[in-house]
Amino acid sequence: MNIEVICTGDEVLTGKIVNTNFSYISQKLDDFGLSLTWETTVGDDRDSLLLAFQLAGQRADAVIVNGGLGPTVDDLSQEIAAKAAGVELALNEHWLATMEAYFAKRARVMPPNNKKQAMLPVGAEILDNPVGTACGFAVNIGKARFFFTPGVPRELRRMLEDQIIPRLLAKAGQQTAVFLKRFHSYGIGESHADTLLAGVEALAPDGSVKLGFRAHYPQLETKLTARGVDINDIRRKLAPVEAEVRKRFGNFILAEDDQTLESVVLSELEKLKGTLTIVESFTGGQITGRLAHLPGAEKILRRGIVARDLTEICNAVSLLNEPDGITREAAEAVARAAQKQTGTTHALAVLIDLDEGADRIEFAGTVCLAIATADDVAVRRSRIVGGRDWVRLGAVEMGLDCLRRYLQRLPVVERIDFEKVE
Amino acid sequence: MNIEVICTGDEVLTGKIVNTNFSYISQKLDDFGLSLTWETTVGDDRDSLLLAFQLAGQRADAVIVNGGLGPTVDDLSQEIAAKAAGVELALNEHWLATMEAYFAKRARVMPPNNKKQAMLPVGAEILDNPVGTACGFAVNIGKARFFFTPGVPRELRRMLEDQIIPRLLAKAGQQTAVFLKRFHSYGIGESHADTLLAGVEALAPDGSVKLGFRAHYPQLETKLTARGVDINDIRRKLAPVEAEVRKRFGNFILAEDDQTLESVVLSELEKLKGTLTIVESFTGGQITGRLAHLPGAEKILRRGIVARDLTEICNAVSLLNEPDGITREAAEAVARAAQKQTGTTHALAVLIDLDEGADRIEFAGTVCLAIATADDVAVRRSRIVGGRDWVRLGAVEMGLDCLRRYLQRLPVVERIDFEKVE
Repeated sequence: MNIEVICTGDEVLTGKIVNTNFSYISQKLDDFGLSLTWETTVGDDRDSLLLAFQLAGQRADAVIVNGGLGPTVDDLSQEIAAKAAGVELALNEHWLATMEAYFAKRARVMPPNNKKQAMLPVGAEILDNPVGTACGFAVNIGKARFFFTPGVPRELRRMLEDQIIPRLLAKAGQQTAVFLKRFHSYGIGESHADTLLAGVEALAPDGSVKLGFRAHYPQLETKLTARGVDINDIRRKLAPVEAEVRKRFGNFILAEDDQTLESVVLSELEKLKGTLTIVESFTGGQITGRLAHLPGAEKILRRGIVARDLTEICNAVSLLNEPDGITREAAEAVARAAQKQTGTTHALAVLIDLDEGADRIEFAGTVCLAIATADDVAVRRSRIVGGRDWVRLGAVEMGLDCLRRYLQRLPVVERIDFEKVE
Repeated sequence: MNIEVICTGDEVLTGKIVNTNFSYISQKLDDFGLSLTWETTVGDDRDSLLLAFQLAGQRADAVIVNGGLGPTVDDLSQEIAAKAAGVELALNEHWLATMEAYFAKRARVMPPNNKKQAMLPVGAEILDNPVGTACGFAVNIGKARFFFTPGVPRELRRMLEDQIIPRLLAKAGQQTAVFLKRFHSYGIGESHADTLLAGVEALAPDGSVKLGFRAHYPQLETKLTARGVDINDIRRKLAPVEAEVRKRFGNFILAEDDQTLESVVLSELEKLKGTLTIVESFTGGQITGRLAHLPGAEKILRRGIVARDLTEICNAVSLLNEPDGITREAAEAVARAAQKQTGTTHALAVLIDLDEGADRIEFAGTVCLAIATADDVAVRRSRIVGGRDWVRLGAVEMGLDCLRRYLQRLPVVERIDFEKVE
């Protein structure tokens, strides 16, 4: 099945907005085994919109149009959809009532120009939008089924997942249910992961589970797309594959599905009624920043300290005997001092000794990190290569992941693919 | 003149890569008064590429194609360009020599598959790439001039600016030079700025200077696109407009051209041989993070402290008398204590008192910030509305901008458009 996407709007065409709606749509379809063949972006211009709709209607079986459903004069999608489909626009009483209820619920009166959002091509199928006033709809243009979606990301996402993907799967003749299982890991490269997981798909019958990866350094996402007659059937088929992935990846799995490394760290601390101090250097506040904005972090993350100079770090944590350079022992002493000073249950110190010289792909840094509690400490040392930004990104991830391992009582030291063996 | 862009590659079409090359191209053309009418994305697929080239060749006067010039088998741009232009591919000896020299300079031998990058459509005009091995080129397809560019952002940018934009301007009949002057401000909304600057374009003769804006909250970029016979002519025409913009925006201009707020803060501190301590709360390390990664920051930014709880903040800066809530006085006391404790020349404290309740568009927070030196202090209080993320973004910017104002001996307190008057 040929599926195309048409993105509309001057803000996207002029580059004022980076088109993340498109990458979202494409990835989400891919999660369900659907793929795109073509994408077109045009501005808020009648002639361009009409031509884009006509061309896509000649090529594709299904087209997702994003944007242009708002209440203002430059929102043209309904008007041009009607023209391309060869029908009139008419007021949809059902959607008008839905919008009036939407405003009433928020104790507001509907502005008159919102009425425009209930003008739909005659015969259009409504695609519900429970989180906004833009009405999604579907019509036929040429040989394709067109699905019109709002430009607001939150509204688009809800409509795509609830309304459009089920229709596309039905149209593709896949009357079966689809489920996506995701594992997040740190420390295993994509090609290594591919080798490690060789053969796991065969543990499910009839090719019902497909394996895929999405690498975004330093994390890797491993995806299992599973099909079945219903969710119970899928879970039964998926179970042996899931178990095998967990077994082969072992301690490297840091989160699953919608969890993140930082949300896992926070929830492990929450379970222990723990509190945390973070001391960081070259990472410049990025470790603290990954946790600080999460709901609930205000009770757990007590203090973050950023300093580059070792003397300054020691001053900040009241460590009287300054260590001689950045070493395992230095990280341990800083973490212990930070824990003692702040009285938190845990302290994480991530110190980085950068090599000398200009930034380049061979540029490296030595990470020395420690996690301290009142009566214990764990230490990790690692060389990360790949330029200053790469070292910084790697150190942020390693710091958080070692803390996750410590909290989950897993070994903090375990060789990863991204470190240089000395 | 109709200009289109065609983006190629499975990684872009599948959404694995967000298409920032496109928004870059579009914005850069806009900076020179050129605008796009259409964008197409297709994958590494011969039929789709050929059709995309043919359709754009029918509609446009100029087309920029991005990607597909690499050495691997899925890089198809040269092959399909030749087919669409109706010519053969032939080895370009000049580019082969250029590539061999490129590798020799790096003490490496050219891998055999790179030779593919020197296969160009017969009659193609070469577009130089001084920073990579992909050869840019131009050919005619249909009624359009096609410019083929590499997918690597750094290579694309150099080629677009040095090679393609001058050719597009010439093609558009603009044989004149173009110069872009940019001002960055914080605290003036786009429509307010538009009103404030009414009439400034008329200070230059013959419409040679055009005014434009690009808003990215909380900053606003004001652009003056100037044309003339040469750069001296442009500078002469631009001077009165530039001066008037500076006069009307006054203290709100925080940086110009490639400067950023954080680079200005750092260079002002450098001039004073100053050092800095930052204390932040709800902003979770983002103020520290804006400065920490900049070259030279390691000598100036001595310490960053992040804590949410006022008691914790006071402990971290050794402030014995804890203030009664987040007030101007509290910010002053914290900044003074931080400066005293660390011995830096300057300390910035940005405290935030969030309203109660769920996150929503009306959600607000009170920012109390202070800048302290050994013998002086400046204080600013403000209410920011717009949801939790908006408050956080606004507070980061206000903290850095007040510090910039203080260092430049400008008033720290000056009403901005983004605060709620009580």
